[in-house]
Amino acid sequence: MDHTETGRRSDARTVGVQAVEDAMRRALELAAEGPAHGPNPRVGCVLLDPAGRTVAEGFHRGAGTPHAEAAALAAARAAGADPRGTTAVVTLEPCAHHGRTGPCADALIEAGVAAVHVAVADPNPVATGGADRLRAAGIEVTTGTLAEEGEELLRPWLHAVRTGRPWVTLKLATSLDGRVAAPDGTSRWITGSAARAHAHRVRAQVDAIAVGSGTVLTDDPSLTARTLDGGLFEHQPLRVVVGTRAVPDGARLRGPGGPLLHLPTHDLDEVLRTLGEREVRHLLVEGGPTLATALLAAYAVDELHAYVAPVLLGAGASAVAPFGVTTIGEAARLATRSVTRLGDDVLLVARRAPTQNGRPARPTKEEI
Amino acid sequence: MDHTETGRRSDARTVGVQAVEDAMRRALELAAEGPAHGPNPRVGCVLLDPAGRTVAEGFHRGAGTPHAEAAALAAARAAGADPRGTTAVVTLEPCAHHGRTGPCADALIEAGVAAVHVAVADPNPVATGGADRLRAAGIEVTTGTLAEEGEELLRPWLHAVRTGRPWVTLKLATSLDGRVAAPDGTSRWITGSAARAHAHRVRAQVDAIAVGSGTVLTDDPSLTARTLDGGLFEHQPLRVVVGTRAVPDGARLRGPGGPLLHLPTHDLDEVLRTLGEREVRHLLVEGGPTLATALLAAYAVDELHAYVAPVLLGAGASAVAPFGVTTIGEAARLATRSVTRLGDDVLLVARRAPTQNGRPARPTKEEI
Repeated sequence: MDHTETGRRSDARTVGVQAVEDAMRRALELAAEGPAHGPNPRVGCVLLDPAGRTVAEGFHRGAGTPHAEAAALAAARAAGADPRGTTAVVTLEPCAHHGRTGPCADALIEAGVAAVHVAVADPNPVATGGADRLRAAGIEVTTGTLAEEGEELLRPWLHAVRTGRPWVTLKLATSLDGRVAAPDGTSRWITGSAARAHAHRVRAQVDAIAVGSGTVLTDDPSLTARTLDGGLFEHQPLRVVVGTRAVPDGARLRGPGGPLLHLPTHDLDEVLRTLGEREVRHLLVEGGPTLATALLAAYAVDELHAYVAPVLLGAGASAVAPFGVTTIGEAARLATRSVTRLGDDVLLVARRAPTQNGRPARPTKEEI
Repeated sequence: MDHTETGRRSDARTVGVQAVEDAMRRALELAAEGPAHGPNPRVGCVLLDPAGRTVAEGFHRGAGTPHAEAAALAAARAAGADPRGTTAVVTLEPCAHHGRTGPCADALIEAGVAAVHVAVADPNPVATGGADRLRAAGIEVTTGTLAEEGEELLRPWLHAVRTGRPWVTLKLATSLDGRVAAPDGTSRWITGSAARAHAHRVRAQVDAIAVGSGTVLTDDPSLTARTLDGGLFEHQPLRVVVGTRAVPDGARLRGPGGPLLHLPTHDLDEVLRTLGEREVRHLLVEGGPTLATALLAAYAVDELHAYVAPVLLGAGASAVAPFGVTTIGEAARLATRSVTRLGDDVLLVARRAPTQNGRPARPTKEEI
């Protein structure tokens, strides 16, 4: 081989940077095919031969099934390909612990892979160390390939593993003047069917949905994830009620759907720690205003899903009650991630803005 | 010529349907180059030769300048082309009255055009009759080519001419919870610079901006249309103050900008009639909540521009005060026209929904 044309050198075992990036993009696609809910991260893996051609692919299909690396190795063998000497491109650092399956680092070593490229290092204290173990076995390991995309895919899981608390998404569905109901309490429907269908698809992707106990009494929600025809999605999130009021015997929450967990407390820290211990990675909070406001006041909202309808009410309950803002600089100001039209409504997804001393960043002053 | 292939017949003087539509699309583009403000409609005109080729184009540049048809005829002559036998494609029915310029219908007749295609018939009682006059002169006239697009371009003007009142656009700039200020009254800035720049470009396109007299005292707005660097656009809308409180001597409203008109009344009907008589075609209402609410209560809002920022306040003045809605079915429900992301903010443009007995349509009931 003559490398003088490109000026780059590579030994025969090393796949080029571009091929690794392409494979990582594919691995991220594969990872996204796994379930968004559940205690385990979504991971994808692509095995490349020394020429950069794909030998096999795999992804994790949820707790109790093979990890992505094991799935890719199995796929290679099933296709009659030898994984020896391949390069493994994996979205998350291979684990080093014995869980429901053996350590992936060991599986890669035993299979004789030559190199491993990782997007995101594993922050999980019980699983980390995979890269070190691979290196000790003489395997070349790099981390950080498409790290940003990898982090984004794993956002709720990474947050939960790093902090011990679930990623909190607050859902609001309001009129343009920020109201969730008319003065007589009626609220069906402020947003339209496209927005509601979207909200149900989000429910089907989270681990748990929480409402305040007041909302249970007022609205009698079912908190199920439903398809367009009213059927139940296969995955039903844990249904969490926060607050001291009892859940009535005949409540819809006791009907078909996910398990019910009543946390009779107003201590949000306790709520989030308890859910974290139960391996709830992603919590969707659907109201009412009391719970939403308490989370905002505690700076505990990681992401906001605001469904806004082209409707004005002029009166009725506000989505959010006072939470200590007295002047504009103290507002809870989020960073917009996306804006999507859903029928006549709009969905604005926003994240917690970069913080200063643990409080949301203040907007900078600007001359009039 | 052999027409057996297409099965269509046409005489040598008649331009085909597709060529007329293409020319109308171009005429609409030309029309849109004219000023959106001012008493006159935006009109574009394209002259086609019998083969469907463009001979000349023209559009109206505002009151006191030639109408689109006259501009196109002048352009043809300036280029040494004979307009005789051409087909005129015009976005609005040629006028039949002597205004600041002579009737366009007569100009087309004198020029010897063979056919005239129109998008929108002229609803103006003093200008209408152009099509009849053309037909009486033996010219073939069709109306309705791209009528919907033509109506859309002329929406405020058509509304004003048909009703005698300006098209009313209500602008709101709010937090996600529908507030226009924090509890201490501070509001600079809820929306970001991209949203504010957009709002200034809208100001530069309307005939008048209105605020309530309370807002003058609270916010001391200038109501000028400003460029990004703080300079003034060439066109400055009429500044209208509605309400009985006096405009202070030192108010910014008395500084550089459009003329000031104080209407010391709470009678919105009187306000809109007065502005209609002054040939205000498009009125932008910028608040405050009292004026916005009165307009909503009177079903006088034709279009809503809602700039929404990813901000939550929990308290502070609402964009809209109570206007009689007690249950969800009575909500002011609008039809979304567009959703646009502007920096971190979103602009939702919505129109008055189809009405039932003059009141906004009720949403249909849907099973839960």
